[in-house]
Amino acid sequence: MIFERVKSEGIAHISYFIGSNSEAVVIDPRRDCQVYIDLARREEMKIKYIFETHRNEDYVIGSLELAHFTGAKIYHGPGLDFKYGERLKDGQEFHFGILKLIAVHTPGHTDESVSYALADLTVGEEPIMVFTGDALFVGDVGRTDLYGHKEATRLAGNLYDSIFNKLLPLGDKVILCPAHGAGSVCGGPISEREQSTLGLERIQNPVLQKTKREDFIQFKITEHHERPPYFRKMEQYNLNGPPLLGHLPNPTPLTPKEFQEQMQLGAVAVDIRMPPAFGGAHIKGSYSIWLDGLPSLAGWMLPYDKPILLMLEDEEQLERAIRYLVRLGYNEIACYLGGGIEAWYNEALPIKHISLLTVQDLKKRLDRGDDLLTLDVRRKDEWDNGHIEGALHIYVGHLEDRLREVSVDRPIAVICNVGHRASLGASILRREGYQEVYNVLGGMTAWKNAGYTIVR
Amino acid sequence: MIFERVKSEGIAHISYFIGSNSEAVVIDPRRDCQVYIDLARREEMKIKYIFETHRNEDYVIGSLELAHFTGAKIYHGPGLDFKYGERLKDGQEFHFGILKLIAVHTPGHTDESVSYALADLTVGEEPIMVFTGDALFVGDVGRTDLYGHKEATRLAGNLYDSIFNKLLPLGDKVILCPAHGAGSVCGGPISEREQSTLGLERIQNPVLQKTKREDFIQFKITEHHERPPYFRKMEQYNLNGPPLLGHLPNPTPLTPKEFQEQMQLGAVAVDIRMPPAFGGAHIKGSYSIWLDGLPSLAGWMLPYDKPILLMLEDEEQLERAIRYLVRLGYNEIACYLGGGIEAWYNEALPIKHISLLTVQDLKKRLDRGDDLLTLDVRRKDEWDNGHIEGALHIYVGHLEDRLREVSVDRPIAVICNVGHRASLGASILRREGYQEVYNVLGGMTAWKNAGYTIVR
Amino acid sequence: MIFERVKSEGIAHISYFIGSNSEAVVIDPRRDCQVYIDLARREEMKIKYIFETHRNEDYVIGSLELAHFTGAKIYHGPGLDFKYGERLKDGQEFHFGILKLIAVHTPGHTDESVSYALADLTVGEEPIMVFTGDALFVGDVGRTDLYGHKEATRLAGNLYDSIFNKLLPLGDKVILCPAHGAGSVCGGPISEREQSTLGLERIQNPVLQKTKREDFIQFKITEHHERPPYFRKMEQYNLNGPPLLGHLPNPTPLTPKEFQEQMQLGAVAVDIRMPPAFGGAHIKGSYSIWLDGLPSLAGWMLPYDKPILLMLEDEEQLERAIRYLVRLGYNEIACYLGGGIEAWYNEALPIKHISLLTVQDLKKRLDRGDDLLTLDVRRKDEWDNGHIEGALHIYVGHLEDRLREVSVDRPIAVICNVGHRASLGASILRREGYQEVYNVLGGMTAWKNAGYTIVR
Amino acid sequence: MIFERVKSEGIAHISYFIGSNSEAVVIDPRRDCQVYIDLARREEMKIKYIFETHRNEDYVIGSLELAHFTGAKIYHGPGLDFKYGERLKDGQEFHFGILKLIAVHTPGHTDESVSYALADLTVGEEPIMVFTGDALFVGDVGRTDLYGHKEATRLAGNLYDSIFNKLLPLGDKVILCPAHGAGSVCGGPISEREQSTLGLERIQNPVLQKTKREDFIQFKITEHHERPPYFRKMEQYNLNGPPLLGHLPNPTPLTPKEFQEQMQLGAVAVDIRMPPAFGGAHIKGSYSIWLDGLPSLAGWMLPYDKPILLMLEDEEQLERAIRYLVRLGYNEIACYLGGGIEAWYNEALPIKHISLLTVQDLKKRLDRGDDLLTLDVRRKDEWDNGHIEGALHIYVGHLEDRLREVSVDRPIAVICNVGHRASLGASILRREGYQEVYNVLGGMTAWKNAGYTIVR
Repeated sequence: MIFERVKSEGIAHISYFIGSNSEAVVIDPRRDCQVYIDLARREEMKIKYIFETHRNEDYVIGSLELAHFTGAKIYHGPGLDFKYGERLKDGQEFHFGILKLIAVHTPGHTDESVSYALADLTVGEEPIMVFTGDALFVGDVGRTDLYGHKEATRLAGNLYDSIFNKLLPLGDKVILCPAHGAGSVCGGPISEREQSTLGLERIQNPVLQKTKREDFIQFKITEHHERPPYFRKMEQYNLNGPPLLGHLPNPTPLTPKEFQEQMQLGAVAVDIRMPPAFGGAHIKGSYSIWLDGLPSLAGWMLPYDKPILLMLEDEEQLERAIRYLVRLGYNEIACYLGGGIEAWYNEALPIKHISLLTVQDLKKRLDRGDDLLTLDVRRKDEWDNGHIEGALHIYVGHLEDRLREVSVDRPIAVICNVGHRASLGASILRREGYQEVYNVLGGMTAWKNAGYTIVR
Repeated sequence: MIFERVKSEGIAHISYFIGSNSEAVVIDPRRDCQVYIDLARREEMKIKYIFETHRNEDYVIGSLELAHFTGAKIYHGPGLDFKYGERLKDGQEFHFGILKLIAVHTPGHTDESVSYALADLTVGEEPIMVFTGDALFVGDVGRTDLYGHKEATRLAGNLYDSIFNKLLPLGDKVILCPAHGAGSVCGGPISEREQSTLGLERIQNPVLQKTKREDFIQFKITEHHERPPYFRKMEQYNLNGPPLLGHLPNPTPLTPKEFQEQMQLGAVAVDIRMPPAFGGAHIKGSYSIWLDGLPSLAGWMLPYDKPILLMLEDEEQLERAIRYLVRLGYNEIACYLGGGIEAWYNEALPIKHISLLTVQDLKKRLDRGDDLLTLDVRRKDEWDNGHIEGALHIYVGHLEDRLREVSVDRPIAVICNVGHRASLGASILRREGYQEVYNVLGGMTAWKNAGYTIVR
Repeated sequence: MIFERVKSEGIAHISYFIGSNSEAVVIDPRRDCQVYIDLARREEMKIKYIFETHRNEDYVIGSLELAHFTGAKIYHGPGLDFKYGERLKDGQEFHFGILKLIAVHTPGHTDESVSYALADLTVGEEPIMVFTGDALFVGDVGRTDLYGHKEATRLAGNLYDSIFNKLLPLGDKVILCPAHGAGSVCGGPISEREQSTLGLERIQNPVLQKTKREDFIQFKITEHHERPPYFRKMEQYNLNGPPLLGHLPNPTPLTPKEFQEQMQLGAVAVDIRMPPAFGGAHIKGSYSIWLDGLPSLAGWMLPYDKPILLMLEDEEQLERAIRYLVRLGYNEIACYLGGGIEAWYNEALPIKHISLLTVQDLKKRLDRGDDLLTLDVRRKDEWDNGHIEGALHIYVGHLEDRLREVSVDRPIAVICNVGHRASLGASILRREGYQEVYNVLGGMTAWKNAGYTIVR
Repeated sequence: MIFERVKSEGIAHISYFIGSNSEAVVIDPRRDCQVYIDLARREEMKIKYIFETHRNEDYVIGSLELAHFTGAKIYHGPGLDFKYGERLKDGQEFHFGILKLIAVHTPGHTDESVSYALADLTVGEEPIMVFTGDALFVGDVGRTDLYGHKEATRLAGNLYDSIFNKLLPLGDKVILCPAHGAGSVCGGPISEREQSTLGLERIQNPVLQKTKREDFIQFKITEHHERPPYFRKMEQYNLNGPPLLGHLPNPTPLTPKEFQEQMQLGAVAVDIRMPPAFGGAHIKGSYSIWLDGLPSLAGWMLPYDKPILLMLEDEEQLERAIRYLVRLGYNEIACYLGGGIEAWYNEALPIKHISLLTVQDLKKRLDRGDDLLTLDVRRKDEWDNGHIEGALHIYVGHLEDRLREVSVDRPIAVICNVGHRASLGASILRREGYQEVYNVLGGMTAWKNAGYTIVR
């Protein structure tokens, strides 16, 4: 038996390649799917089935792409009318090699959510692993707010039933294989650890301690999750089938002059270097989204109908950036600046700075009563967990929509957890004409490490 | 938390790299240890501790080698006087990042065998994983015959106590991380599957179904395991600490003439190509051990005090061959034949063949009463499971010592499971002057697939 | 300035990537063109132009494929009506970065053949390198027989003029960059060395020592070159533009039963293992073409209208085999046997052998007057250079067409230079029902090394 | 024949691997010598000889290291008493495969400098290539100032004789293979192009246009080259043989606190990120040397007797940094900051900035008469080629020694060609307590591109 976790960083997505003898299946493939083809080739296996656990909302599923290359058959859970692949039934069984997958309908995150229990028939019919999609994570459960406020109670109840009546009864001994790890927008505080079992979750997962159905529902409907605008695009893609790529995009390097022209024609520039480098020197009008922030943040800002221009730290970042963007449905990443920011300023083209504040600087200025607005751009749960007194809270994803709440006349110190999202927040403000904008390096992490007080 | 299985093929050895925050530990490192250094660098972690589960007998442990590069501290279990590293106590705890390892003395395979339970302190003190060394495998338990016949009962009883009273009580939910997978000489029929939990083993592991202590002991003391001669070298190395390598050996390509001279001077030639190629053409006097058979078979044949010469299918096999041999303590692989067998026969140097029989050929010849000796070189348990009527059984590892049982006058058809070990067996006979020797391609697998009868 | 040779083994094709500042050109790209895209990305360059030196006949040109990914503009020489790209004029200049390419029409190999002289404008207009396509090689010149007997004299004269009046006058100092190295079917004895200059060729190239036009022509029109049947397909592809691939084919692993069925349905099996392995055990009816022989030999045997099945030594050979076949226009390599020959014989499916003779064996049998036909399958020039007395000569590429010349009743020892092409020859005879067929290992190389006599 | 250029970026060093049949030689190997071992293995060749062209002064030669792994024999030119290897004679010949190297004593850069002419014996004794070490480059010749002022005239005369009387007479057609490319400190304006011939140099090399011996000498003795202090260490290493490494150093990741402690204990911190990132946020007291600047600049600043601490942009920079430093004789790179600058400021540890000026900013401030010192830290030849009026010139390598010339009271704008060396200059000033220091982004390149005036 071959068992491989394939992680897609950033969206913290986990897909699985499972094979036995000469047959393999893939669960929730990602769109840049060569990785599964390579695994199949290494093992001299044929990918027979592709299983989706649900219609994903946070990335483009790679089922059609992978089926195109391999001829594998695609299966979805019951309850939604997908335009491609086949709908399976609760309890349906699939054999490959000496293994068997049994579909277990586990609605709650979405109606068509399905888990897959795996049995090793050489030792019996008992499940040894379960692939739970977005129903059950290590340390958390799936969000139940995707159908809106009215449906949240129903979904939360469904999820309770799915977990307590269908998954946990499979037994403590069963290995848990969820679709996401820490950092996903599909759950809350998912554990950094990827290894778990149903038994460990039964005991340790904070949400599963709410063993009464009503407590569980109550907890779930009061949770707050962000819902980035690109989710709609993903849902549409994943329902109807996204366009086939065939291969990854091949962006063209531009000269500084060409880059400037593209920007003037409406292309959107994204600077994927780290905050200190962006703060030090960047092109006016560009967004600051550090490379590994693209998967979770690009979908808030970047339009689908305009060319995207990349500013890189070095050429080695390019492929990862392409993959991140393709997974979010940005099919054509047009161009990047050849030679990077250095090429730009060597041409004597204008550059901008964002001043970087240490927490000591910030503290000093707040203490002496400077007219400085502290703008906290973290998620609501992070803000609720403790923030600087007097700060204004707007999640970075909402900042462009709520600019009128931010005074243009005051200096603004943007803060997040460590300084990454704050750099994006600061870049948004600069794009909109705010003059004196700071990024607080180290963010609330440094603030707390410095021993400064927080309020809740 | 970072968790990486590092598998060493052939000896089916599994080591583990576990890290948290900036600290990591390695359990049972292999000798070609760059892999752990690379993992540590990728994760920007410092390897703090190296843990051995026991004095290994089937490969050279890499603890000293890894400590040389990293400065990590080495720990052994109680009960044996290692000449390097430190001895830990049952129950001793080790912290790294937010993780904790607790030593659990689990004698049975050897007296100093120790398991390590891992707790994730962010969720509590409950163990989530256990590293069981050679005490408990997926589908099997460790062998208890290493101290000889007299001690076997005591060790088997110890192992029962370790498993039933110390490991299983950790709970069904705990993930099992053993030191070996399928194919190891340290156990019997270990499962092809690597993923398991204590709960799954409790139910599915055939040996653990012997829940009565006396049944368990009885089963263990009647088991048969081979004990290759190189074990003694490994035990000595792993007790005292093997010589430091610093880097992998760099064998020299030889011309055919130089290769021939080296053989005449006493160097031992090993042909690591596959059986059909060896059968087709090989150098007189060379052993046939296919590349992936080196880890389990080289230690039966190859001396430690003579140079080893390699015959490769192509240059890409060289590094793997070096690694395999270094893990068995062959520190200097002197040379290989540049250009392979083709260079040899292009020089008009003499070549030998071993005729390859199909099972159909063999059946026909046996049916018509040819004076053909079928020599079965599989392990005893395989032989016991069914063999060809009238065959002679000598395990390939014992063949050189038991040649007087094999008539030099008869044609001999060597058979194993598929034809790999039979090729080695046939090469041994040819080295010793046997004239008419065949390798049965497909071996007993093909024999059974052809529907021919077997006896037990 | 960036200068990279991209070699395609087997067809001994050399393409060139030349870049300066942010612009690059590619000369004669191969069809699996990712290599140029990767170079361009590494250098942050844009591929601006693709230049073809002529309509190639021995492989599928990758111009359209590369243009599809990069948007580069394609140029051809004058004299042929290509259905894609643009036709350039003799003397036309192309600038990229600080470099300049000047087209030099050099007909002879074909009418539209063009060379490209490169100048580094930072030091002047003098050419520093010249890309000569199939006009001038290291140690040889291009063949002039491609338009048939009637045109050969005209082409040879054209080639003389191109070399002596257009290329050599560029100066001794100019670095020579031809389209092929040793082993190409587009020339004769091209040197193993790739580095040369016009001055070195002027002195050392044997053909250029024929400085009189009539001597040169006489030499060229009496030369003999083979003309594999697939050339017609290549010419058609390269005139009209081959189909776009987008990505390399992804063959499916078959089980032995499926493989057998495919063969019965007419698929053609090619065994790409080395001769000793093929001789040891192979599937009836399969061709023996060792991996690196595919580029030069597959086009003689393999049909374009039937599925091709591969038998590999190991999975690592697959990608190279795919590339080799794709370069010859085999766009869909359907399948390969998962698990290789071992999977086959483990299923007790029938296998065949080809006995391997040493030259000592062959000599002995010939000396004692055995009724053994020695069949020499080398090229005519190799045969002319010396062969075994009494041997029959049929080039391996012609063997299927000239079988009636080969007696079915006699044992046949097939011989070539080392035993590779002889294995193919032997496999052809076995496919056609010849019973007693041998491959002489080491071939004429071993024969000569053994000191046996040859005749001319 | 196998011919491979092995380039070591940064020092712009080129070594050569040349092989034929099963034998190879390496010319001027670098210290991290695995690359040659890998080439030899890929080609199944044995490295027979290692040739040095001279005692190098700008990097640690890898001859002893490579000989340790391969057993190859080391040769030096005549005229210096090396403590390892053998001294060859002018005209001495070395055979390997079908190739021949002939030593040609070419003093001038140093007394023992020797070139190697290569003949391909299959086509004759005429040289086809020549390996000229530091005697003749593409576009330049070796420096002749290394023995000091008094010897310069003699050396320049020797070099003239070596080039005009020994190298050029080998013929226009001979391919040139020098020991350095553009960017080396061993020559002046070496061409960006690596491909050349003796004929091209005869015509195009500016220095070779001085065909009269006295003109040539006059030119050479008035040239100015920098002489970094680490040259002495290299000379000593390369005369006596440097210490063996066996493997590359394995630096430990430190926590911010540990890093801070090491700095307090005297370790020297080097920040290898790009200038905008360094400018944005860095640790007080660290040098700013961008990664690819290490080879040419580290030897000016970094002591050999103190631990070196690295600050990286990301972990992928580490190996390159190690290689760069090892080539300069820094044998133990102790540590690097795990998690980079982000880990530092997340701990609320203090950070520093260097403000980055655009050339527009600089121009404005100079025009309006700000009291701003422009400090130009380029090489003398760059300065002589044009600089900003009123600027002070101190080469960055001399800055620490000439600080008293730089006023501590004035704001200082450090400028170089593009902003890299200026970042180092600025970091030196900040280390020494200068308060208001700027780095001019884009440097003189941007200044000129902006159309601002320069003076000479």
